[in-house]
Amino acid sequence: MSAVAVRSMFQSHPEQPSHADALSRCIDACFNCVETTSACADACLAEKHVARLITCIRLNNDCAAVCAATGSILTRANKVGHRQLLEAQLTTCIAFARTCAAECQRHAEMHKHCEVCAKACQHCVDACTEMLSSMRMPA
Amino acid sequence: MSAVAVRSMFQSHPEQPSHADALSRCIDACFNCVETTSACADACLAEKHVARLITCIRLNNDCAAVCAATGSILTRANKVGHRQLLEAQLTTCIAFARTCAAECQRHAEMHKHCEVCAKACQHCVDACTEMLSSMRMPA
Amino acid sequence: MSAVAVRSMFQSHPEQPSHADALSRCIDACFNCVETTSACADACLAEKHVARLITCIRLNNDCAAVCAATGSILTRANKVGHRQLLEAQLTTCIAFARTCAAECQRHAEMHKHCEVCAKACQHCVDACTEMLSSMRMPA
Amino acid sequence: MSAVAVRSMFQSHPEQPSHADALSRCIDACFNCVETTSACADACLAEKHVARLITCIRLNNDCAAVCAATGSILTRANKVGHRQLLEAQLTTCIAFARTCAAECQRHAEMHKHCEVCAKACQHCVDACTEMLSSMRMPA
Repeated sequence: MSAVAVRSMFQSHPEQPSHADALSRCIDACFNCVETTSACADACLAEKHVARLITCIRLNNDCAAVCAATGSILTRANKVGHRQLLEAQLTTCIAFARTCAAECQRHAEMHKHCEVCAKACQHCVDACTEMLSSMRMPA
Repeated sequence: MSAVAVRSMFQSHPEQPSHADALSRCIDACFNCVETTSACADACLAEKHVARLITCIRLNNDCAAVCAATGSILTRANKVGHRQLLEAQLTTCIAFARTCAAECQRHAEMHKHCEVCAKACQHCVDACTEMLSSMRMPA
Repeated sequence: MSAVAVRSMFQSHPEQPSHADALSRCIDACFNCVETTSACADACLAEKHVARLITCIRLNNDCAAVCAATGSILTRANKVGHRQLLEAQLTTCIAFARTCAAECQRHAEMHKHCEVCAKACQHCVDACTEMLSSMRMPA
Repeated sequence: MSAVAVRSMFQSHPEQPSHADALSRCIDACFNCVETTSACADACLAEKHVARLITCIRLNNDCAAVCAATGSILTRANKVGHRQLLEAQLTTCIAFARTCAAECQRHAEMHKHCEVCAKACQHCVDACTEMLSSMRMPA
């Protein structure tokens, strides 16, 4: 639902951002990742063998922090002026989400919440990558 | 999509939260509100008559901050221990989102992005209210 | 240092906020609390008996989320218009920080980081309380 | 005050982070920057010639988002495992804070709040740069 809401907002934005589809999907994938990594960190904390999940918890929290920043910055991504900053943020976000996806995947068989979280992280990686590609194409 | 993802995570959470449906919807409504209020603040900034939208921009930013906190706290809302804190946070969140919805509604005819944002804020009010009701019923 | 920086900013704010001293101290106490609760959550995660610290970790994370929102909202607290919202946010923040301080205090003898964190939480409670009092006095 | 608090917490962290001094200063500089950029964005919004400050407001908001993420991630920076992620985050944070400092500096003569904010952003750039250097030296 939210990607649709954000998408429809950009249509009435006075400076209609180019690539509004990729942008809307990316914002939504980032905040979806905030939700799942935060929830996964908490589910891990409740597991009996929490000591084995410390790295997963930390990466989940780091990923939530970066994705929240990325999502917020993307809602202001309507201008051509700071393209390099946006590329830096997306690239950093991809690095965190990819690492978090890999760590969660290691626990996916054991913990369903890690499997769901790994998918959301990978979805965020894909959406950020698509956004980067869109930015490099003519509007 | 994200409400579904979070919902399926709670099913594998070792301390299965009661009211997982209301909880998942509420988390998702909060982060959706973060997206729309952030995007609305930026669209308002780009309007020619920005001076008339200062209050709207501030409320949007405040609402984004509160909803991000609420969504984050709700992902850890699996325990009975701190029900009063959760109720306080939900009540405060409702107050901000309701005020922001009313302010955006004032500009809804003029600015489509304010109309979309008002709906997202109202949706957040409803989801937080439903969550509060669920908490007050036996699990 | 930061309270000084923010204080000097408010002096040049076109709408000079009343109670700028209490406001600056409160903003700074909130972000200081974000730092210490985040760091305490991570230190707890690294403790051998992490299982005993789960509640402490969760409260630390919740407190960080609320204090970040409060600090952000307070930087926009220059208007008379939304006093009730500000009071609700401060009251909720006090509730979280007080509960977190009490939980950290329980582990203070065992873990120095919990002792430091409890003090930062209490300092935040005091600053928010002082801010509420200032708001209720004539400017 | 807060750098001192965080510094003393790391002394009791079970995995004493190396370079705790640079780390504490960097965390504090990041959250100080969150405070000043958020306050500067709001002061800009209140200026008569707000239309000239739109870029400044957006960069302030972006910078606040990145610095909040960096500060949060740094509180978990106690492990050797994800050094590349930390370097990516610090590098991106430096890029945003440097650009925001330059934009605020353009308005420094006109607006004292922009002058104060430019200094806080530059201080954040310096602290992140120092942190990067520390990480590259043997512990």
